[in-house]
Amino acid sequence: MNIQLALDRFSIEDAKAIAKEVEDHVDWIEVGTSLIKEFGMLSVKELKMTFPDKTILADMKTMDNAKYEAALCFEAGADVMTVMGAASEATITTCIQTARQYGKEVMIDLLNLTDTQKEQLKSYNDVIFCEHVSKDDQETSGSKNETTSSLFQDKRLAMAGGITEASLVRLRELKPEVVIIGSAITKADNRNQAAERLKQLSKYEEAN
Amino acid sequence: MNIQLALDRFSIEDAKAIAKEVEDHVDWIEVGTSLIKEFGMLSVKELKMTFPDKTILADMKTMDNAKYEAALCFEAGADVMTVMGAASEATITTCIQTARQYGKEVMIDLLNLTDTQKEQLKSYNDVIFCEHVSKDDQETSGSKNETTSSLFQDKRLAMAGGITEASLVRLRELKPEVVIIGSAITKADNRNQAAERLKQLSKYEEAN
Repeated sequence: MNIQLALDRFSIEDAKAIAKEVEDHVDWIEVGTSLIKEFGMLSVKELKMTFPDKTILADMKTMDNAKYEAALCFEAGADVMTVMGAASEATITTCIQTARQYGKEVMIDLLNLTDTQKEQLKSYNDVIFCEHVSKDDQETSGSKNETTSSLFQDKRLAMAGGITEASLVRLRELKPEVVIIGSAITKADNRNQAAERLKQLSKYEEAN
Repeated sequence: MNIQLALDRFSIEDAKAIAKEVEDHVDWIEVGTSLIKEFGMLSVKELKMTFPDKTILADMKTMDNAKYEAALCFEAGADVMTVMGAASEATITTCIQTARQYGKEVMIDLLNLTDTQKEQLKSYNDVIFCEHVSKDDQETSGSKNETTSSLFQDKRLAMAGGITEASLVRLRELKPEVVIIGSAITKADNRNQAAERLKQLSKYEEAN
């Protein structure tokens, strides 16, 4: 299980500083959509330059213009990009094709999709599917990703949305490839310790 | 009917230069998603500074983190932001509330939604609904927005996606508030003349 550190609502400098604090305990670093929209591809470039050995995910949340957006972030140094499951088949397919050309990966974000919509996405192979509870739903209704089953259980799976130590323990059963963690690390009093504990908990299943 | 000039896949300098060429014949200027993701909010700031009297639309395509993203673009000078119809109710509502606080507007992008999904959005008031055929669908299957009916006909309506002089004439019947035009202007041999003709055609319905 990889821990993906989600960096949102920060300056590029703060994002780099926070990632430095915890780099020993995280595997992937996510350049959040808010950084991308505030600072553009400079945010992806700076994070990749600072952490060349980490997997850098650009949370592009692509809805259209797939080839252009994919090329933008892969040229800037991203290893993985996100595309919305709500996008058209043409958009998702083009993201995957462009990622292949660059030798990079695609994560399909399942945000706000019905099970019927999710079923239609299962035919995509060799992508990562991200079960995701939105920030806005977390802040409005307090909902978090506490899923313990997924339509994508037999696929490469990522989990995102308000994940804490407790929910990480529960979702280990799903054996996700990636667990995406933001505030449980970035808002911790001691970020390094929080990340270390989360990384330890993520290893439990593998050891058993 | 307002003509919205959509600027995508350009540098900020080229976007400004193209908008200068046609400014007499366009009403709204769209800072395209590709400019936002490539250059960040600097793209919105520069377009607003260069065209303070135009309505500047930031094509944020917000899917989550609504308050933060709305504040970003309105602080940068946007007059209108886009949110995806595919986003959660919490996200759309928060965009609208934040826009109200800034005295700004929201356009809901109906990209890739079913009629059932569109029906659920009709309860939002005082927003603009954008019937939108994606770039990727245009490039993959040649489809364009040639809609002559819309579930949002009695609402504030925008139309986007491969619109040409011919399709503009057809969709005038819907009396959209905004018609969004990209390549029919930006790829024209004479952009100023193309924009002037489109603006003239857009006025026809009002005069009749």
